[in-house]
Amino acid sequence: LFDGVLARGPVRDAVADAAWLRAMVEVEVALARSLSRAGLARAEEVAAIERATAEPFDSASIGREAADAGTPVLPLVRAIQDRLGEPAASLVHRGATSQDILDSAAMLVSRRALDLIATDLVAAADAAADLARAHRDTPIAGRTLLQQAVPTSFGLKAAGWMSGLDAALTRLQEIAEHRLAVQLGGAAGTRATLGDAGTEVARLLADELGLARAPLPWHTERSRIGELAGGLGVAAGAIGKPALDVVLLAQTEVGEVREGVAGRGASSAMPHKRNPVGAVAALAAARVAPGLVATLLASAVQPHERAAGEWHAEWRPLAELLRTVGSGAAWLRDCLEHLEIDEARMLENLDRHGGLLFAEAVADALLPSMGRRSGQATVERVATEARAGGRPFAEVLLSDLEIGSRLQPEEIARLLDPRNAVRGAAALVDQALEQRASRAAR
Amino acid sequence: LFDGVLARGPVRDAVADAAWLRAMVEVEVALARSLSRAGLARAEEVAAIERATAEPFDSASIGREAADAGTPVLPLVRAIQDRLGEPAASLVHRGATSQDILDSAAMLVSRRALDLIATDLVAAADAAADLARAHRDTPIAGRTLLQQAVPTSFGLKAAGWMSGLDAALTRLQEIAEHRLAVQLGGAAGTRATLGDAGTEVARLLADELGLARAPLPWHTERSRIGELAGGLGVAAGAIGKPALDVVLLAQTEVGEVREGVAGRGASSAMPHKRNPVGAVAALAAARVAPGLVATLLASAVQPHERAAGEWHAEWRPLAELLRTVGSGAAWLRDCLEHLEIDEARMLENLDRHGGLLFAEAVADALLPSMGRRSGQATVERVATEARAGGRPFAEVLLSDLEIGSRLQPEEIARLLDPRNAVRGAAALVDQALEQRASRAAR
Amino acid sequence: LFDGVLARGPVRDAVADAAWLRAMVEVEVALARSLSRAGLARAEEVAAIERATAEPFDSASIGREAADAGTPVLPLVRAIQDRLGEPAASLVHRGATSQDILDSAAMLVSRRALDLIATDLVAAADAAADLARAHRDTPIAGRTLLQQAVPTSFGLKAAGWMSGLDAALTRLQEIAEHRLAVQLGGAAGTRATLGDAGTEVARLLADELGLARAPLPWHTERSRIGELAGGLGVAAGAIGKPALDVVLLAQTEVGEVREGVAGRGASSAMPHKRNPVGAVAALAAARVAPGLVATLLASAVQPHERAAGEWHAEWRPLAELLRTVGSGAAWLRDCLEHLEIDEARMLENLDRHGGLLFAEAVADALLPSMGRRSGQATVERVATEARAGGRPFAEVLLSDLEIGSRLQPEEIARLLDPRNAVRGAAALVDQALEQRASRAAR
Amino acid sequence: LFDGVLARGPVRDAVADAAWLRAMVEVEVALARSLSRAGLARAEEVAAIERATAEPFDSASIGREAADAGTPVLPLVRAIQDRLGEPAASLVHRGATSQDILDSAAMLVSRRALDLIATDLVAAADAAADLARAHRDTPIAGRTLLQQAVPTSFGLKAAGWMSGLDAALTRLQEIAEHRLAVQLGGAAGTRATLGDAGTEVARLLADELGLARAPLPWHTERSRIGELAGGLGVAAGAIGKPALDVVLLAQTEVGEVREGVAGRGASSAMPHKRNPVGAVAALAAARVAPGLVATLLASAVQPHERAAGEWHAEWRPLAELLRTVGSGAAWLRDCLEHLEIDEARMLENLDRHGGLLFAEAVADALLPSMGRRSGQATVERVATEARAGGRPFAEVLLSDLEIGSRLQPEEIARLLDPRNAVRGAAALVDQALEQRASRAAR
Repeated sequence: LFDGVLARGPVRDAVADAAWLRAMVEVEVALARSLSRAGLARAEEVAAIERATAEPFDSASIGREAADAGTPVLPLVRAIQDRLGEPAASLVHRGATSQDILDSAAMLVSRRALDLIATDLVAAADAAADLARAHRDTPIAGRTLLQQAVPTSFGLKAAGWMSGLDAALTRLQEIAEHRLAVQLGGAAGTRATLGDAGTEVARLLADELGLARAPLPWHTERSRIGELAGGLGVAAGAIGKPALDVVLLAQTEVGEVREGVAGRGASSAMPHKRNPVGAVAALAAARVAPGLVATLLASAVQPHERAAGEWHAEWRPLAELLRTVGSGAAWLRDCLEHLEIDEARMLENLDRHGGLLFAEAVADALLPSMGRRSGQATVERVATEARAGGRPFAEVLLSDLEIGSRLQPEEIARLLDPRNAVRGAAALVDQALEQRASRAAR
Repeated sequence: LFDGVLARGPVRDAVADAAWLRAMVEVEVALARSLSRAGLARAEEVAAIERATAEPFDSASIGREAADAGTPVLPLVRAIQDRLGEPAASLVHRGATSQDILDSAAMLVSRRALDLIATDLVAAADAAADLARAHRDTPIAGRTLLQQAVPTSFGLKAAGWMSGLDAALTRLQEIAEHRLAVQLGGAAGTRATLGDAGTEVARLLADELGLARAPLPWHTERSRIGELAGGLGVAAGAIGKPALDVVLLAQTEVGEVREGVAGRGASSAMPHKRNPVGAVAALAAARVAPGLVATLLASAVQPHERAAGEWHAEWRPLAELLRTVGSGAAWLRDCLEHLEIDEARMLENLDRHGGLLFAEAVADALLPSMGRRSGQATVERVATEARAGGRPFAEVLLSDLEIGSRLQPEEIARLLDPRNAVRGAAALVDQALEQRASRAAR
Repeated sequence: LFDGVLARGPVRDAVADAAWLRAMVEVEVALARSLSRAGLARAEEVAAIERATAEPFDSASIGREAADAGTPVLPLVRAIQDRLGEPAASLVHRGATSQDILDSAAMLVSRRALDLIATDLVAAADAAADLARAHRDTPIAGRTLLQQAVPTSFGLKAAGWMSGLDAALTRLQEIAEHRLAVQLGGAAGTRATLGDAGTEVARLLADELGLARAPLPWHTERSRIGELAGGLGVAAGAIGKPALDVVLLAQTEVGEVREGVAGRGASSAMPHKRNPVGAVAALAAARVAPGLVATLLASAVQPHERAAGEWHAEWRPLAELLRTVGSGAAWLRDCLEHLEIDEARMLENLDRHGGLLFAEAVADALLPSMGRRSGQATVERVATEARAGGRPFAEVLLSDLEIGSRLQPEEIARLLDPRNAVRGAAALVDQALEQRASRAAR
Repeated sequence: LFDGVLARGPVRDAVADAAWLRAMVEVEVALARSLSRAGLARAEEVAAIERATAEPFDSASIGREAADAGTPVLPLVRAIQDRLGEPAASLVHRGATSQDILDSAAMLVSRRALDLIATDLVAAADAAADLARAHRDTPIAGRTLLQQAVPTSFGLKAAGWMSGLDAALTRLQEIAEHRLAVQLGGAAGTRATLGDAGTEVARLLADELGLARAPLPWHTERSRIGELAGGLGVAAGAIGKPALDVVLLAQTEVGEVREGVAGRGASSAMPHKRNPVGAVAALAAARVAPGLVATLLASAVQPHERAAGEWHAEWRPLAELLRTVGSGAAWLRDCLEHLEIDEARMLENLDRHGGLLFAEAVADALLPSMGRRSGQATVERVATEARAGGRPFAEVLLSDLEIGSRLQPEEIARLLDPRNAVRGAAALVDQALEQRASRAAR
């Protein structure tokens, strides 16, 4: 019911029960293959297991039986074995404990979800990069504490979005490559039942599944989960930041951007309204993440060789965290790819204070001749005069004698020209885009 | 797949999509009834709406359309109207905004879930009360920082569980009664389209739905959600506490309790194992709650008349919080109702330190004649002697001259008798049970 | 360094180390008095303890010694005893364990902090009530998802703030009265060393300290802490909501309110800026609370008779939570008490859409004659015409034949008059203020 | 008062107000130097600023004035300027905004705190490595869900601790090197007042401070803070895990380890008690972290060019997070460096089930001849016989005919020999230590 809004995009299915179950089956099959490659099983047995697991299993009945076992792995193993005769049945799950299967499956599920999240994050970052490029020189009020401060360019704002998304992506890719590792430890993490072949089987299993190797079983060493959670938490922030900006820029009184997907966010009762649904839903997704990250981090304190609840406490929050970040990424991509920019409105808003946004620039220009403090004092005096008289800042500046003795009219005009004011911003945009291009080229 | 373990009990269905959708329909119907009772609609129109909503709606298609609207209410209203002709169609949703329907439905869903949670919590508290009564005098080591400290009774431990569960229940009941309130404000919380009848319609709607009245619409005044979240967070703690105790008492090396549900928690590969699955799953449920509470509390900071993401961010965490607390309550009830107590093992463990657990009692007995400090010093000297020599504390006490001059042998025997040591604990159990009985009698 | 911004107001000192230490001393003294009143000590001994504790203790040295003991109580008890001879020295701390003293002190510290928080929250709610009264009829755009939706009154917005603050206050007062309870259990919560007098001493101690009685010791039954945390979390939300509204209303492009404390939030380099420092700092305080609440709730799962880290984990977060909510309350009070309202700007903003904000009202007026759907369609058609032609909504409405056949010009004028539009809002304000007055009268 | 327990170690001072203020001064001085190196200031002015800032500033008075400005930077700049004449006074803070100074200072403070944390974490990991090496072959019960499962070695447990600590360290070092970046953006992140020299000055400033460079100002792009928080959260988990194990292993009924710091954790009233204070305090520290991480992650959603409260909301949680992880690291180091191991007790506990812990190994040995299922069934039959008759598992195995026909007595003895059982564990320890050594060699 809520998934259209809160679980948009392909990650939803990638972390659904069916995907978990499929991943668990894959791990069992890959384990059999690994045992065979390590010389601990025969090819026929592996083939039998592959055939037996080709058809899907019944998630609901396995879920029901999971209650008594405390995990769905035991009923799954029984279900697989029920489709097999000996000796293949005995091979299933050999050397593994339930947590080996579930943790490895969690890593598979996470890797696939991360791939999908990355696709949407890359697209969102690309859209932000396009906006940065197109609007490197578009003046907009820089706002601090939600007050207009000094001019910037809309391109620099978009470059900031891009930069946050790229940082989150970089981290998620590191995690996907190095920290999503296979789990294989057996009952107490000693790989005892695999004898001397334990290390080899673990390595083969990692390779079969395309997961990173783990020097030690990590049943109760959960830094991998913690880093994954942290990376997703940072991604949520990187998603939420542009979403918040869009919501704020789309305010009726600001009106500098709006979401451009036809038919979305309209209200029949209020025809003037155009809700920024994409940004709002992205923001909602981002807000849900930090609490889930905290739960996953707190769950890392696990007793002895396998946990007594802390491990179980990871399952839903991990799936939910992937889901919500996936939803946020999908919404943000959609939002940024269809964002409509109103440059005229940006300029108009920039002039709200009658040019006072350029006061800092004027004070800077006075600095060589007056020093900072008296320069600022002079500008403040002029600004007060302008506000008191309801006159444009430029006009008062030009008629002021103290200013006039130090700055030429054309210098003043230059200082108050928004196009000029965004030079610094534009240079930063260029650098950021160049860095991105050179990173992509590697 | 995981719901057998992590979403046990009836709350799971009570917070599922179907239940939300049903609740939303109920709110729309109740609204039509309220409008009619307030004279703003005719009985035939209401009857038409009742007939049109008798058949369920398609949650999946409504969910899909929800994406564009940002909420599932708009597509639901359209779906209802599609089953109606005028003038009934125009009556549907009259005076309401999407959030009115969804918030009121959330309150209905919450109240029903709370009822179910309360049933399990009451049963768990009753089971704890039974244990408290049955074991008011059963000596067990009191453990602080997981070290044996002084004796207590198992009954007092169980009374503590009961007390925590009862406190959580009391609070949840207050919330259910006073804080689950109807929402009716219209587009911006002014009830404008209802004219002067707004207050009356809101009151009637509350009564129709059996929800508390709200003096003001609370679209962005989320203290109700926050209190609900807080109450559930406290309940999670009250569930987790006995669950943790059971897990610890069931440890192989302690062995004072075990879960008594046949077939559960057994391991084919490790026949000696008997995993306390109920307590473990209850603990897992409890661990998931605090992060969700934080998300709901953080979402309370909502802008203006209706939020821009913070409201959406409540939906899944609220359902998830109800679900996880419901699961924990169901598991804990199951665990406590089938808990097997090993009194002999409790006594045996109590004697691990050769009687040193009674040192505090001996020091207390010496206090009148020696003062606290020299009494304690004397006891420490004797205790050191006992430990160094590997002799029972009682034996060394009885042979010690300094002690002998102050305490009679029968006094020493009394001080070291576990049955005697738990007198204080038993008295507390009695008081707690009496209070509970008198509270129930009201 | 940051306390001026982040720990404003008197709560900072009320939860500082010195206040905790003083509270711990008070508990030890009150315990001695209670023992005496229960006949377990002589008045001279109590008097000696009172004299010995009149001078403050050295927090730093006690803190240092606390490391080895794991709590500051043991070194404090030693420090008290060092100032006493026997038998008074032996009376100190009699019957208590460290946690008894620290928990009771935490309750004292919390109660005092809650009193201070309540003072600021009441003042903030009063300020909101004054704004509600003064502006019950002041039209302002109702904003949903940060888009202008339909008109409301500024008074109703302020009444919403008041309502949230009052709800938080009510809950905090319940907690202060009923849930801040004395702790007295002895080493393992059995009150063993007090013999049959345990219950009486606990009651007397509660009365001495002005704390609620506790039927059972609650060393590891932490629902009280959880409720306190939850209540403070709700208060943080109630503080953050108006603060966010003020920040949004104070935006340069909105400009409907500003903070009126002279000299605050000014920027020398940007003379046009006036940062809403109070609201910003209140918002910052509110944002810090939910994570702390989660920590306190998670810490409720404590093992056996006394915890192994979970209890220690409460100390700083509890103090920090009181401090941050106290800071938020102080800032919000300051903000609301000095808030400047710009009614003209509110009206001006309301007209941004050329009257389209009244579209819903027009559609409602058409409902009797056209039904909802065709009424809305007609209004949408007119609205589109107005927007396309850049003409005021009123003008197009008045010249539209379909509309004209159904609504008289004066009816249209009435529907589009902001003063009229806020009637519903004003009525809600009146009700909310009346309810408040009658609650206060009780 | 609580810092001895909750803020142990040198990080406390490194994140105290004085350290923040010092870091802010350093940033201002480094900025002046960078301006000079970029040709925007003269060496004399820089020298004047260096002299003027040599003496410390008054943290309390700056903190007081911070309230009006919303940050302590403005009063600090004024205080510096008050010690200078022109033109040096005008140079101070040139090109910077308050947030530039505070963020850069936060990075300095964090880097220093991370260095201190790393020192303690390395020492703790070394201590764990020493335990792993010394006890690679020491049999201990592997415990899952707190139930004895199969044997492992204490060395493998310690290697798991080491592995978690090393993983956390690796991540923190990456963050320290690459993510603690300089902040320099000016009023709205455009570096406008520095003109074309902006990029160069930012680079020079990074180098002066030994911080990473930042391609863009990151006033509202908070991925750096998020990654830092996440890394610290993972470290907290890595600290909490061994601490929890120590607390559990030190339980009276387990007694396999105890903390060896003389005088710590003793109780005068309970001479038999030896509280594992170090582990308990480390655990407490770990429990406090996740909520703070969540706050920092949630604060990443910041509006426009500079935040309206979300930035302020980072300050205390960041300092508190560094402090608590520092405290945990210091305590854990202390705990592990002095941990006393009781090998005899480990063996004794391992025999609690009369050898049943070796059932899995026996079933594995039967696998080739019987297949998994009948092998397990046979072992279960024997195990049941052993438990029912209260006889050792070995004895029943040796006398069982079905077993006897398949396994020789010496094979059975080998399977039941704990030393043999830990071979797999020992091999894993060796690999983990080798990996660590080779990583250190790089």
